[in-house]
Amino acid sequence: MEELFKGLKSYGSNELLKELKGKKPFFICTIATTSTAKIPDITGAGATPELTNYTPAGDVELIMRGEMRCCDIPPQTIVDGVSALTPAMLTKASLELTNVPYLLADAGSEIKPDAPVITISKYMKPGDDIRTGKAVDDPEKLFEDSKIIGKELSKSHDYLVIGESIPAGTTTALGVLTALGYDANFKVSGSMPTNPHNLKKDVVMEGLTNGGILDGIGNIGKINPFQAVAAVGDPMIPTVAGMVFGSDVPIILAGGTQMAGLCAFIKAIDPDFDFSRICLGTTSFVANDGTSDLFSIISQIDDINVHVVNPAFEDSSNDGLKNYLKGFVKEGAGAGGSMLMALLLGYSIEEIRKKVEEVCE
Amino acid sequence: MEELFKGLKSYGSNELLKELKGKKPFFICTIATTSTAKIPDITGAGATPELTNYTPAGDVELIMRGEMRCCDIPPQTIVDGVSALTPAMLTKASLELTNVPYLLADAGSEIKPDAPVITISKYMKPGDDIRTGKAVDDPEKLFEDSKIIGKELSKSHDYLVIGESIPAGTTTALGVLTALGYDANFKVSGSMPTNPHNLKKDVVMEGLTNGGILDGIGNIGKINPFQAVAAVGDPMIPTVAGMVFGSDVPIILAGGTQMAGLCAFIKAIDPDFDFSRICLGTTSFVANDGTSDLFSIISQIDDINVHVVNPAFEDSSNDGLKNYLKGFVKEGAGAGGSMLMALLLGYSIEEIRKKVEEVCE
Repeated sequence: MEELFKGLKSYGSNELLKELKGKKPFFICTIATTSTAKIPDITGAGATPELTNYTPAGDVELIMRGEMRCCDIPPQTIVDGVSALTPAMLTKASLELTNVPYLLADAGSEIKPDAPVITISKYMKPGDDIRTGKAVDDPEKLFEDSKIIGKELSKSHDYLVIGESIPAGTTTALGVLTALGYDANFKVSGSMPTNPHNLKKDVVMEGLTNGGILDGIGNIGKINPFQAVAAVGDPMIPTVAGMVFGSDVPIILAGGTQMAGLCAFIKAIDPDFDFSRICLGTTSFVANDGTSDLFSIISQIDDINVHVVNPAFEDSSNDGLKNYLKGFVKEGAGAGGSMLMALLLGYSIEEIRKKVEEVCE
Repeated sequence: MEELFKGLKSYGSNELLKELKGKKPFFICTIATTSTAKIPDITGAGATPELTNYTPAGDVELIMRGEMRCCDIPPQTIVDGVSALTPAMLTKASLELTNVPYLLADAGSEIKPDAPVITISKYMKPGDDIRTGKAVDDPEKLFEDSKIIGKELSKSHDYLVIGESIPAGTTTALGVLTALGYDANFKVSGSMPTNPHNLKKDVVMEGLTNGGILDGIGNIGKINPFQAVAAVGDPMIPTVAGMVFGSDVPIILAGGTQMAGLCAFIKAIDPDFDFSRICLGTTSFVANDGTSDLFSIISQIDDINVHVVNPAFEDSSNDGLKNYLKGFVKEGAGAGGSMLMALLLGYSIEEIRKKVEEVCE
């Protein structure tokens, strides 16, 4: 397929992108935490395991303020002494470059950011460890309340770009995908070079069992999507889905396999959902990741177009960015979708990369 | 002066309104509470004194959901068995009629609305009784954080309309006005037909004394505006002021004497502030109120244009609306400014009144 921009590769149709070129977006990043992230070795988000659930709040602060307030150490992934900075830096760079208006939404975070955010519901809570089988309280409420946000913010913009920041979100995505009958084992992405698939699978199976989703002989019964999220999902999924259903304009879901999980959730809510009005915008680090398979998951759900941005960090002199090429971080905080948005607004991939480097300094 | 619309009376220049006619607004209502509202007889907001601080949360729920959730009894003013519904109904009507996008912001409320809102700061608290002289914790922080909101929401809109809902807000406005050296005694408005001016004045004087704003011989020393709010203000004032300073587009301050207090605060922050880019939009119930004097306060501050909307409730068959003519409620939740916005968007005052009646049913 003809590529619209240098640095972009589209899988499926790029008709929607052509329509959105030069149009006016609004960016939202939805944060949440889940105690699932506290399972040892499950996620690489955060400089240390103790700091994992500071990552979403830290991402918000970096995007809004350009500095951390909730703790001293910026969100990053460190493995064997090698570190890569949070993808929120890519998002911040895209937002600064384009001057696109944005807000951050909190769907239930253990650590609150020191920055103004949309509180989706006064009743919301961080997600529980999905091994309990009781991961999210009242996902219907998060869904219904965030519909209002999607509706209001779509009124005066041509499209919405929605990202997420939730450590261990690929595990909860695997949970929801599995609960909804998809084959996603060994296919979800992760923030570390080595993807702990067996651990993720075990955690999900324990949750499905404890949540009563598996029947006596290990089969998944017929459940509704809110039951799936309530058992083994996270607060971000129903919240972003609510924004999608509330919006009157097209949406770029800014993320990889977590957003694939979201699409499965959307499809389960409305089997006739028109996926031509939304698409995934993600990074080449996810798309080319040998430890996961985004496209296999997507193809099981529906005709969903995936647009992949490659910021060519091999051309960067910043080591923290170069480490993305070694399998660190890959995506998050809407990084891929926000870069896609910058391309749609006429910025070149070189300009985007340069701005990312500038923001990282 | 030539009136732009039937039902509108402009005091000062209407050049800004001419510029905004037909343009794209965004509406924000900022809620907060202050324990000052618990002083007996100081405010008429709420069906009973116990319900007073449920009013802002109830207003948000009525605007967003069309129904109350935080308690069973809708916000209203009842005196001697006569009641008038909250002005949030006027705001809701204007928003429904125009389909203008909006969000609600919480600057520190004792009762949280069951609806998605912008949380200005995780550190924010409801305002204290101003008699303590320590009414608002860290108003600078509210100001700085809400600047971000004003900036982001102004990016893709031609102007902002900002209202407030805070019971006893005229008393805190009197506090700030007095602390900043203005003569506002017996001039601030109120939600009841009888305005407890002496009580308001006593409360403010006690606060100024305890807050160390009055010197030994009863004179007000030179203080900065944040000291004034910290001593005898409320959390709404620095928050809405932050939005004003953060915005790149003109602003309609939707309210009466409380917004006059806000203008005094703005002027104290920046003596060279360009008041031609903002204006007050309020109701005829405030402007024609014999128990207060909005214009006397305004004229002490600067050349601030005031636009007054008269929804002609005498032509309504709804008793709850007709009681506005008897001095109940008058203004709040951005009612006047939201009706002005509807006029600017081409709706007639008759259409607005009809929609208000419809919403009240």
